[in-house]
Amino acid sequence: MNRAEVYDYETRAKRDDHQALRLWLRFFACANLVENHIRKNLRAQFATTLPRFDLMAQLERHPAGLTMGEISRRMMVTGGNITGIADELEAAGLVVRAPARDDRRARKVKLTAAGRRAFADMARAHERWIVECFAGLNRKDKSSMYDVLARLKQHAAANGAHVR
Amino acid sequence: MNRAEVYDYETRAKRDDHQALRLWLRFFACANLVENHIRKNLRAQFATTLPRFDLMAQLERHPAGLTMGEISRRMMVTGGNITGIADELEAAGLVVRAPARDDRRARKVKLTAAGRRAFADMARAHERWIVECFAGLNRKDKSSMYDVLARLKQHAAANGAHVR
Repeated sequence: MNRAEVYDYETRAKRDDHQALRLWLRFFACANLVENHIRKNLRAQFATTLPRFDLMAQLERHPAGLTMGEISRRMMVTGGNITGIADELEAAGLVVRAPARDDRRARKVKLTAAGRRAFADMARAHERWIVECFAGLNRKDKSSMYDVLARLKQHAAANGAHVR
Repeated sequence: MNRAEVYDYETRAKRDDHQALRLWLRFFACANLVENHIRKNLRAQFATTLPRFDLMAQLERHPAGLTMGEISRRMMVTGGNITGIADELEAAGLVVRAPARDDRRARKVKLTAAGRRAFADMARAHERWIVECFAGLNRKDKSSMYDVLARLKQHAAANGAHVR
Protein backbone atom coordinates (compact mmCIF):
# COMPACT_ATOMS: atom_id res chain seq x y z
CA MET A 1 0.00 0.00 0.00
CA ASN A 2 1.36 3.43 -0.82
CA ARG A 3 0.89 6.43 1.37
CA ALA A 4 -2.18 7.74 -0.50
CA GLU A 5 -3.97 4.40 -0.09
CA VAL A 6 -3.25 4.31 3.62
CA TYR A 7 -4.61 7.80 3.96
CA ASP A 8 -7.77 6.93 2.04
CA TYR A 9 -8.33 3.83 4.06
CA GLU A 10 -8.00 5.75 7.31
CA THR A 11 -10.21 8.57 6.15
CA ARG A 12 -12.91 6.14 5.09
CA ALA A 13 -12.63 4.18 8.36
CA LYS A 14 -13.02 7.36 10.35
CA ARG A 15 -15.99 8.48 8.28
CA ASP A 16 -17.62 5.05 8.65
CA ASP A 17 -17.05 5.16 12.42
CA HIS A 18 -18.77 8.49 12.76
CA GLN A 19 -21.55 7.32 10.48
CA ALA A 20 -22.23 4.34 12.78
CA LEU A 21 -22.17 6.52 15.90
CA ARG A 22 -24.45 9.16 14.41
CA LEU A 23 -26.81 6.43 13.23
CA TRP A 24 -26.88 4.86 16.70
CA LEU A 25 -27.60 8.18 18.42
CA ARG A 26 -30.53 8.86 16.10
CA PHE A 27 -31.69 5.24 16.38
CA PHE A 28 -31.61 5.38 20.17
CA ALA A 29 -33.40 8.75 20.22
CA CYS A 30 -36.19 7.35 17.98
CA ALA A 31 -36.56 4.22 20.11
CA ASN A 32 -36.86 6.41 23.23
CA LEU A 33 -39.33 8.70 21.49
CA VAL A 34 -41.70 5.88 20.56
CA GLU A 35 -41.20 4.03 23.85
CA ASN A 36 -41.98 7.12 25.93
CA HIS A 37 -45.05 7.81 23.80
CA ILE A 38 -46.30 4.27 24.49
CA ARG A 39 -45.54 4.54 28.22
CA LYS A 40 -47.40 7.85 28.45
CA ASN A 41 -50.45 6.53 26.59
CA LEU A 42 -50.59 3.28 28.58
CA ARG A 43 -50.56 5.32 31.77
CA ALA A 44 -53.11 7.89 30.60
CA GLN A 45 -55.56 5.56 28.87
CA PHE A 46 -55.19 2.29 30.79
CA ALA A 47 -53.55 3.31 34.08
CA THR A 48 -50.91 0.69 33.40
CA THR A 49 -47.17 0.40 32.69
CA LEU A 50 -45.06 -0.92 29.81
CA PRO A 51 -43.64 -3.86 31.84
CA ARG A 52 -47.20 -4.93 32.80
CA PHE A 53 -48.31 -4.68 29.17
CA ASP A 54 -45.21 -6.58 28.06
CA LEU A 55 -45.79 -9.37 30.59
CA MET A 56 -49.43 -9.75 29.48
CA ALA A 57 -48.30 -9.77 25.82
CA GLN A 58 -46.00 -12.74 26.51
CA LEU A 59 -48.83 -14.63 28.25
CA GLU A 60 -51.25 -13.88 25.43
CA ARG A 61 -48.88 -15.65 23.02
CA HIS A 62 -48.74 -18.70 25.31
CA PRO A 63 -52.26 -19.71 26.37
CA ALA A 64 -50.91 -22.75 28.25
CA GLY A 65 -49.05 -20.38 30.54
CA LEU A 66 -45.41 -19.62 31.25
CA THR A 67 -43.18 -20.18 34.27
CA MET A 68 -41.64 -17.09 35.86
CA GLY A 69 -38.29 -18.03 34.30
CA GLU A 70 -39.83 -18.26 30.84
CA ILE A 71 -41.56 -14.89 31.28
CA SER A 72 -38.32 -13.29 32.40
CA ARG A 73 -36.45 -14.58 29.31
CA ARG A 74 -39.21 -13.42 26.95
CA MET A 75 -39.81 -9.88 28.30
CA MET A 76 -38.85 -7.10 25.87
CA VAL A 77 -38.68 -4.47 28.60
CA THR A 78 -35.86 -4.92 31.09
CA GLY A 79 -35.36 -3.74 34.61
CA GLY A 80 -38.77 -4.49 36.10
CA ASN A 81 -39.36 -6.78 39.06
CA ILE A 82 -41.19 -9.61 37.27
CA THR A 83 -42.49 -11.24 40.45
CA GLY A 84 -43.86 -7.94 41.70
CA ILE A 85 -45.60 -7.28 38.38
CA ALA A 86 -47.14 -10.79 38.33
CA ASP A 87 -48.35 -10.24 41.92
CA GLU A 88 -50.05 -6.97 40.93
CA LEU A 89 -51.69 -8.55 37.88
CA GLU A 90 -52.88 -11.48 40.00
CA ALA A 91 -54.33 -9.12 42.63
CA ALA A 92 -56.19 -7.32 39.81
CA GLY A 93 -57.64 -10.66 38.61
CA LEU A 94 -55.85 -10.44 35.25
CA VAL A 95 -53.58 -13.49 35.69
CA VAL A 96 -53.61 -16.69 37.76
CA ARG A 97 -50.80 -18.92 38.93
CA ALA A 98 -51.53 -22.62 38.58
CA PRO A 99 -49.53 -25.88 38.67
CA ALA A 100 -48.22 -26.89 35.20
CA ARG A 101 -49.93 -29.88 33.56
CA ASP A 102 -46.70 -31.64 32.69
CA ASP A 103 -44.85 -30.89 35.93
CA ARG A 104 -46.98 -30.39 39.06
CA ARG A 105 -44.04 -28.84 40.90
CA ALA A 106 -43.69 -26.03 38.34
CA ARG A 107 -46.21 -23.20 38.55
CA LYS A 108 -47.31 -21.41 35.42
CA VAL A 109 -48.79 -17.96 35.05
CA LYS A 110 -51.78 -17.58 32.68
CA LEU A 111 -54.10 -14.79 31.63
CA THR A 112 -57.63 -15.03 33.06
CA ALA A 113 -60.65 -14.33 30.81
CA ALA A 114 -60.67 -10.78 32.23
CA GLY A 115 -56.94 -10.54 31.52
CA ARG A 116 -57.44 -11.60 27.89
CA ARG A 117 -60.20 -9.00 27.45
CA ALA A 118 -58.12 -6.23 29.07
CA PHE A 119 -55.08 -7.15 26.98
CA ALA A 120 -57.08 -7.20 23.73
CA ASP A 121 -58.23 -3.60 24.39
CA MET A 122 -54.71 -2.45 25.21
CA ALA A 123 -53.15 -4.28 22.25
CA ARG A 124 -55.57 -2.62 19.82
CA ALA A 125 -54.75 0.83 21.21
CA HIS A 126 -51.02 0.00 21.30
CA GLU A 127 -51.04 -0.98 17.63
CA ARG A 128 -52.87 2.26 16.78
CA TRP A 129 -50.21 4.36 18.60
CA ILE A 130 -47.42 2.52 16.78
CA VAL A 131 -49.13 2.99 13.41
CA GLU A 132 -49.43 6.72 14.15
CA CYS A 133 -45.76 6.97 15.18
CA PHE A 134 -44.62 5.24 11.98
CA ALA A 135 -47.10 6.97 9.65
CA GLY A 136 -44.34 9.30 8.38
CA LEU A 137 -42.77 6.30 6.62
CA ASN A 138 -44.16 4.78 3.45
CA ARG A 139 -44.41 1.01 2.88
CA LYS A 140 -41.04 0.89 1.12
CA ASP A 141 -39.28 2.77 3.96
CA LYS A 142 -40.75 0.37 6.49
CA SER A 143 -39.93 -2.68 4.47
CA SER A 144 -36.32 -1.61 3.83
CA MET A 145 -35.80 -0.71 7.47
CA TYR A 146 -37.25 -4.06 8.52
CA ASP A 147 -34.67 -5.85 6.34
CA VAL A 148 -31.75 -3.68 7.46
CA LEU A 149 -32.68 -4.30 11.11
CA ALA A 150 -32.63 -8.06 10.49
CA ARG A 151 -29.00 -7.78 9.36
CA LEU A 152 -28.17 -5.51 12.29
CA LYS A 153 -29.69 -7.96 14.77
CA GLN A 154 -27.96 -10.95 13.26
CA HIS A 155 -24.56 -9.30 13.13
CA ALA A 156 -24.77 -7.71 16.59
CA ALA A 157 -25.89 -11.02 18.11
CA ALA A 158 -23.06 -12.91 16.38
CA ASN A 159 -20.65 -10.36 17.87
CA GLY A 160 -21.60 -11.09 21.42
CA ALA A 161 -24.48 -8.69 22.00
CA HIS A 162 -27.15 -10.49 23.99
CA VAL A 163 -30.41 -11.11 22.09
CA ARG A 164 -33.61 -11.02 24.10
CA MET B 1 -66.47 3.21 -3.50
CA ASN B 2 -67.71 -0.23 -4.43
CA ARG B 3 -67.45 -3.23 -2.17
CA ALA B 4 -64.20 -4.52 -3.70
CA GLU B 5 -62.49 -1.17 -3.16
CA VAL B 6 -63.61 -1.05 0.47
CA TYR B 7 -62.28 -4.53 0.98
CA ASP B 8 -58.93 -3.67 -0.63
CA TYR B 9 -58.61 -0.55 1.43
CA GLU B 10 -59.27 -2.43 4.65
CA THR B 11 -56.94 -5.26 3.74
CA ARG B 12 -54.17 -2.84 2.95
CA ALA B 13 -54.78 -0.85 6.15
CA LYS B 14 -54.61 -4.02 8.19
CA ARG B 15 -51.43 -5.14 6.43
CA ASP B 16 -49.84 -1.71 6.98
CA ASP B 17 -50.79 -1.81 10.64
CA HIS B 18 -49.12 -5.13 11.16
CA GLN B 19 -46.10 -3.95 9.19
CA ALA B 20 -45.67 -0.97 11.55
CA LEU B 21 -46.06 -3.17 14.63
CA ARG B 22 -43.63 -5.82 13.38
CA LEU B 23 -41.16 -3.08 12.47
CA TRP B 24 -41.44 -1.52 15.94
CA LEU B 25 -40.91 -4.84 17.70
CA ARG B 26 -37.74 -5.51 15.70
CA PHE B 27 -36.62 -1.88 16.11
CA PHE B 28 -37.10 -2.06 19.87
CA ALA B 29 -35.32 -5.44 20.09
CA CYS B 30 -32.32 -4.02 18.16
CA ALA B 31 -32.18 -0.90 20.33
CA ASN B 32 -32.19 -3.09 23.46
CA LEU B 33 -29.56 -5.38 21.98
CA VAL B 34 -27.11 -2.55 21.31
CA GLU B 35 -27.95 -0.70 24.54
CA ASN B 36 -27.38 -3.81 26.67
CA HIS B 37 -24.11 -4.50 24.87
CA ILE B 38 -22.94 -0.96 25.69
CA ARG B 39 -24.08 -1.23 29.32
CA LYS B 40 -22.25 -4.54 29.74
CA ASN B 41 -19.02 -3.23 28.20
CA LEU B 42 -19.10 0.03 30.21
CA ARG B 43 -19.46 -2.02 33.38
CA ALA B 44 -16.79 -4.59 32.46
CA GLN B 45 -14.18 -2.26 31.01
CA PHE B 46 -14.75 1.01 32.88
CA ALA B 47 -16.73 -0.02 35.97
CA THR B 48 -19.29 2.60 35.04
CA THR B 49 -22.92 2.88 33.94
CA LEU B 50 -24.71 4.22 30.87
CA PRO B 51 -26.35 7.15 32.75
CA ARG B 52 -22.91 8.22 34.09
CA PHE B 53 -21.43 7.98 30.59
CA ASP B 54 -24.39 9.89 29.16
CA LEU B 55 -24.10 12.67 31.74
CA MET B 56 -20.36 13.05 31.03
CA ALA B 57 -21.10 13.08 27.27
CA GLN B 58 -23.45 16.04 27.73
CA LEU B 59 -20.83 17.94 29.75
CA GLU B 60 -18.12 17.19 27.19
CA ARG B 61 -20.22 18.99 24.55
CA HIS B 62 -20.60 22.03 26.84
CA PRO B 63 -17.22 23.04 28.25
CA ALA B 64 -18.77 26.07 29.98
CA GLY B 65 -20.85 23.68 32.07
CA LEU B 66 -24.55 22.92 32.39
CA THR B 67 -27.08 23.46 35.15
CA MET B 68 -28.78 20.36 36.58
CA GLY B 69 -31.94 21.29 34.68
CA GLU B 70 -30.04 21.54 31.39
CA ILE B 71 -28.37 18.17 31.99
CA SER B 72 -31.69 16.56 32.77
CA ARG B 73 -33.24 17.85 29.52
CA ARG B 74 -30.25 16.70 27.45
CA MET B 75 -29.80 13.17 28.84
CA MET B 76 -30.50 10.39 26.33
CA VAL B 77 -30.95 7.75 29.03
CA THR B 78 -33.99 8.22 31.22
CA GLY B 79 -34.87 7.03 34.67
CA GLY B 80 -31.64 7.76 36.51
CA ASN B 81 -31.35 10.05 39.51
CA ILE B 82 -29.34 12.88 37.92
CA THR B 83 -28.39 14.51 41.21
CA GLY B 84 -27.16 11.19 42.60
CA ILE B 85 -25.07 10.55 39.48
CA ALA B 86 -23.57 14.05 39.59
CA ASP B 87 -22.72 13.51 43.28
CA GLU B 88 -20.91 10.25 42.48
CA LEU B 89 -18.97 11.83 39.63
CA GLU B 90 -18.02 14.77 41.85
CA ALA B 91 -16.84 12.40 44.61
CA ALA B 92 -14.70 10.60 42.00
CA GLY B 93 -13.14 13.94 40.96
CA LEU B 94 -14.57 13.75 37.43
CA VAL B 95 -16.88 16.78 37.65
CA VAL B 96 -17.06 19.98 39.72
CA ARG B 97 -19.98 22.21 40.58
CA ALA B 98 -19.23 25.93 40.34
CA PRO B 99 -21.22 29.18 40.23
CA ALA B 100 -22.17 30.19 36.67
CA ARG B 101 -20.30 33.19 35.21
CA ASP B 102 -23.42 34.95 34.02
CA ASP B 103 -25.60 34.18 37.04
CA ARG B 104 -23.83 33.67 40.37
CA ARG B 105 -26.94 32.12 41.89
CA ALA B 106 -27.01 29.30 39.31
CA ARG B 107 -24.52 26.48 39.75
CA LYS B 108 -23.09 24.70 36.73
CA VAL B 109 -21.57 21.25 36.50
CA LYS B 110 -18.37 20.88 34.46
CA LEU B 111 -15.94 18.09 33.66
CA THR B 112 -12.57 18.33 35.44
CA ALA B 113 -9.34 17.64 33.51
CA ALA B 114 -9.46 14.08 34.92
CA GLY B 115 -13.10 13.82 33.83
CA ARG B 116 -12.22 14.90 30.28
CA ARG B 117 -9.44 12.31 30.09
CA ALA B 118 -11.67 9.54 31.49
CA PHE B 119 -14.48 10.45 29.12
CA ALA B 120 -12.15 10.53 26.08
CA ASP B 121 -11.08 6.92 26.84
CA MET B 122 -14.66 5.75 27.30
CA ALA B 123 -15.90 7.60 24.20
CA ARG B 124 -13.25 5.95 22.02
CA ALA B 125 -14.21 2.49 23.31
CA HIS B 126 -17.93 3.32 23.02
CA GLU B 127 -17.53 4.31 19.38
CA ARG B 128 -15.62 1.07 18.69
CA TRP B 129 -18.45 -1.02 20.22
CA ILE B 130 -21.03 0.82 18.14
CA VAL B 131 -18.99 0.36 14.97
CA GLU B 132 -18.77 -3.37 15.72
CA CYS B 133 -22.52 -3.63 16.38
CA PHE B 134 -23.34 -1.87 13.07
CA ALA B 135 -20.63 -3.60 11.01
CA GLY B 136 -23.24 -5.93 9.48
CA LEU B 137 -24.63 -2.93 7.55
CA ASN B 138 -22.91 -1.39 4.54
CA ARG B 139 -22.59 2.37 4.02
CA LYS B 140 -25.76 2.47 1.93
CA ASP B 141 -27.80 0.60 4.56
CA LYS B 142 -26.61 3.00 7.24
CA SER B 143 -27.21 6.05 5.12
CA SER B 144 -30.75 4.98 4.12
CA MET B 145 -31.64 4.08 7.71
CA TYR B 146 -30.30 7.44 8.90
CA ASP B 147 -32.63 9.22 6.46
CA VAL B 148 -35.66 7.07 7.27
CA LEU B 149 -35.10 7.68 10.99
CA ALA B 150 -35.09 11.44 10.38
CA ARG B 151 -38.59 11.16 8.90
CA LEU B 152 -39.72 8.88 11.72
CA LYS B 153 -38.46 11.32 14.35
CA GLN B 154 -40.01 14.33 12.68
CA HIS B 155 -43.39 12.67 12.19
CA ALA B 156 -43.54 11.09 15.65
CA ALA B 157 -42.57 14.38 17.30
CA ALA B 158 -45.21 16.27 15.32
CA ASN B 159 -47.76 13.74 16.55
CA GLY B 160 -47.17 14.45 20.17
CA ALA B 161 -44.39 12.01 21.03
CA HIS B 162 -41.93 13.79 23.29
CA VAL B 163 -38.51 14.40 21.69
CA ARG B 164 -35.51 14.31 24.01
